[in-house]
Amino acid sequence: MKRIAIIGAGPSGLAQLRAFQALKEQNIDIPEIVCFEKQQDWGGLWNYTWRTGVDQNGEPVHGSMYRYLWSNGPKEALEFADYSFDEHFGRAIPSYPPREVLWDYIKGRVEKADVRQYVRFQHAVRYVTFDEDSKQFNVTVQDYQHNQIYDEAFDYVIVASGHFSTPRVPEYPGFEHFTGRLIHAHDFRDAVEFQDQTLLIVGSSYSAEDIGSQCYKYGAKEIISCYRSKPMGFKWPDNWSERPCLKYVDHDTAYFEDGSSAKVDAIILCTGYLHHFPFMQDQLRLKTHNCLYPLNLYEGVVWENNHQLFYLGMQDQWYTFNMFDAQAWYVRDVILGRIELPAVEQMQQEGQQLHEQEQQLDDVAELIEFQGQYVERLIQQTDYPTFDIEQVNQIFLTWHQHKFDDIMTFRDKTYRSVMTGTMAAKHHTRWLKAYDDSLKAYLAKKTVKKEASFS
Amino acid sequence: MKRIAIIGAGPSGLAQLRAFQALKEQNIDIPEIVCFEKQQDWGGLWNYTWRTGVDQNGEPVHGSMYRYLWSNGPKEALEFADYSFDEHFGRAIPSYPPREVLWDYIKGRVEKADVRQYVRFQHAVRYVTFDEDSKQFNVTVQDYQHNQIYDEAFDYVIVASGHFSTPRVPEYPGFEHFTGRLIHAHDFRDAVEFQDQTLLIVGSSYSAEDIGSQCYKYGAKEIISCYRSKPMGFKWPDNWSERPCLKYVDHDTAYFEDGSSAKVDAIILCTGYLHHFPFMQDQLRLKTHNCLYPLNLYEGVVWENNHQLFYLGMQDQWYTFNMFDAQAWYVRDVILGRIELPAVEQMQQEGQQLHEQEQQLDDVAELIEFQGQYVERLIQQTDYPTFDIEQVNQIFLTWHQHKFDDIMTFRDKTYRSVMTGTMAAKHHTRWLKAYDDSLKAYLAKKTVKKEASFS
Repeated sequence: MKRIAIIGAGPSGLAQLRAFQALKEQNIDIPEIVCFEKQQDWGGLWNYTWRTGVDQNGEPVHGSMYRYLWSNGPKEALEFADYSFDEHFGRAIPSYPPREVLWDYIKGRVEKADVRQYVRFQHAVRYVTFDEDSKQFNVTVQDYQHNQIYDEAFDYVIVASGHFSTPRVPEYPGFEHFTGRLIHAHDFRDAVEFQDQTLLIVGSSYSAEDIGSQCYKYGAKEIISCYRSKPMGFKWPDNWSERPCLKYVDHDTAYFEDGSSAKVDAIILCTGYLHHFPFMQDQLRLKTHNCLYPLNLYEGVVWENNHQLFYLGMQDQWYTFNMFDAQAWYVRDVILGRIELPAVEQMQQEGQQLHEQEQQLDDVAELIEFQGQYVERLIQQTDYPTFDIEQVNQIFLTWHQHKFDDIMTFRDKTYRSVMTGTMAAKHHTRWLKAYDDSLKAYLAKKTVKKEASFS
Repeated sequence: MKRIAIIGAGPSGLAQLRAFQALKEQNIDIPEIVCFEKQQDWGGLWNYTWRTGVDQNGEPVHGSMYRYLWSNGPKEALEFADYSFDEHFGRAIPSYPPREVLWDYIKGRVEKADVRQYVRFQHAVRYVTFDEDSKQFNVTVQDYQHNQIYDEAFDYVIVASGHFSTPRVPEYPGFEHFTGRLIHAHDFRDAVEFQDQTLLIVGSSYSAEDIGSQCYKYGAKEIISCYRSKPMGFKWPDNWSERPCLKYVDHDTAYFEDGSSAKVDAIILCTGYLHHFPFMQDQLRLKTHNCLYPLNLYEGVVWENNHQLFYLGMQDQWYTFNMFDAQAWYVRDVILGRIELPAVEQMQQEGQQLHEQEQQLDDVAELIEFQGQYVERLIQQTDYPTFDIEQVNQIFLTWHQHKFDDIMTFRDKTYRSVMTGTMAAKHHTRWLKAYDDSLKAYLAKKTVKKEASFS
């Protein structure tokens, strides 16, 4: 029997397990699957950890998730087509759930599918090579449960380890002697730690916007964010200002390109993440910046130079969970021979074309549509339940507008599910006042006393 | 020509380079040497970085060094026998130099030896295997300068990557919801960050003692340290108390085994480090806790089951730099066939005996003497310049007593060099008031104004 290794049991890896299990429940034979997960539980980034740096085994901490994180996009844009929020929660819930609620939802589908048996937890993939003679991969794995390293042969490898785990950490002059706290967003955990402090946030993308907002919500004294190309441009609260690029730091003071300076207590580098696959042999290793259509991956997933190797979810993302599903179902069908791949030259040509096409796009609507078309193209080739992509594109656009209307209230809005038609419930508490992010508080009928007691 | 791979260019790896170069300058042929160093410069832990977590390449940060670290033992106990402090600084300096000064000293010797040519910087060793047919190692390396992974064959591998880089991070109930800052000592960088805060320090060994002392020196409001087996027992300042084991944490409050509790701003886990060699094939991988005589290493360095493999500096350490030298000279001579190894059974028997002997030792004097004997045994087998081990043992004992006399002044004491007979100079400023830890301030004739201006 053919053997498949899946690296990672986060949203992408779990989508892959579910894709195969969906066939198995139709009594169709599936290959032997082993999913290697270095954490103790599944869910990838959604499996929160208080740890930073390296974990209990000495592995770099996977999680970039922080406490009090609420989805920064409407759940209606990421809903699984085969497992709705209605099915999981049994009732309508609001559009922007906190982390624990989304984790619960992800877990609900795979628990129902009963695929935990395929996962080896606390197993870190150390190195993957391909043997041209046997046409198999050798996967070297460190099993931290038994403190041993072993090799196993596989016919297929699916890399689903994500690309929001290895921080891109730039250096600015003076960092070595900065006397305050200096971390990357990857190591940010609890906004309460920054109460009454003046924060410098370096960066102008999602992490900067959201970590700044969290710290504002939980009582930071002042927030300064700085950008390289252009300001985020939201209507910030009075104690939040945007400044041009950081030039250098001198002990406790940051200096900016406009000649201004500010004494700051902490610097949080919201400078993005690296596509980092140190466990892949060079000729198998994806090397790309963060974009909607990385090169070398046919249909965004098939390694063009070796069709036994796949990467899931390596795109920059508007679409998330249901895009990973579309990819997982597609990969499954390639492996099972249900989808025939074109000649390598054609793959490369198509990939190059789409990669270049992305660079011509310049507004949000075009970018969203580009990724929507990609998801639709994949879905049309498999039996993954189809859904109204155009409607999801509209949700993204409305969300985008809501943020510019008011960055501190956009999470109070509600959307209609594309999958079930259910209108989201209005949450019992405005996001800005909902301090308790637990599943329990979120699903409670009304504000629990403790929630309102912060500050 | 035989090829040698050295993993790491810290004090141990550099000792190994110096050992070979010492022969080369006598016009003796030496094997081809490649030293792989994942950092951008040499010096290992002594090469300070402001980074925590993972570095610019996504590799776990090697450095556990923090700002304002001063040697916690007298320099007279770690002096190189072939390169004295007098030679490097041209005059007597005090006994407890800060980090930058010791780094300068380490670098001085290897710059003089001109061995930088052997080091490949920003090269992380990914995986090492041994081929029984060719009797060679395959070393897989990630070259971050050129973003590529490649393989190379070597006849010998010397692991010199240290064992104070991978934190041992325990979990206590409530950590997940602790609202303050929570880090391991490995990620501690600047004591000024903790000014006016109440700190909980978990642990009772060197990190706990020293990080607490740093934070006291730089203005922490209160320090609570807690222990599992017994208190450190030093005469702490009034705002430092020792408590029994931490039981759990509830949001901002820590609860201890004696029923007491305390609201704390930050928790620093001074809970030690792991011997972590994920890049070594299982049968080549040292698995040990931190002790003076780990098993499987003949004379503390030769991998008993494969005499082409060596580990340097893997012992718990009273002796440091000059012990690494003794080991490096010994390893060099084993490789060159100048030292003949006994039968494997005899090696194992001796190792077992010494490992057990260590467990019988129960006071500091015996432990120091045990390691002193080990160093002496190695030195007698090579041409490394011999020195008065008994005298160094006495330095350790005096140092130990000074700490118990007054933990906040022991660094103001001076010692006489075993190598040169030079008496250390008295420092211009008491350690407790010497806030500027730079080389420049240290070597200045008297207190620079800035130094005294803190607090």
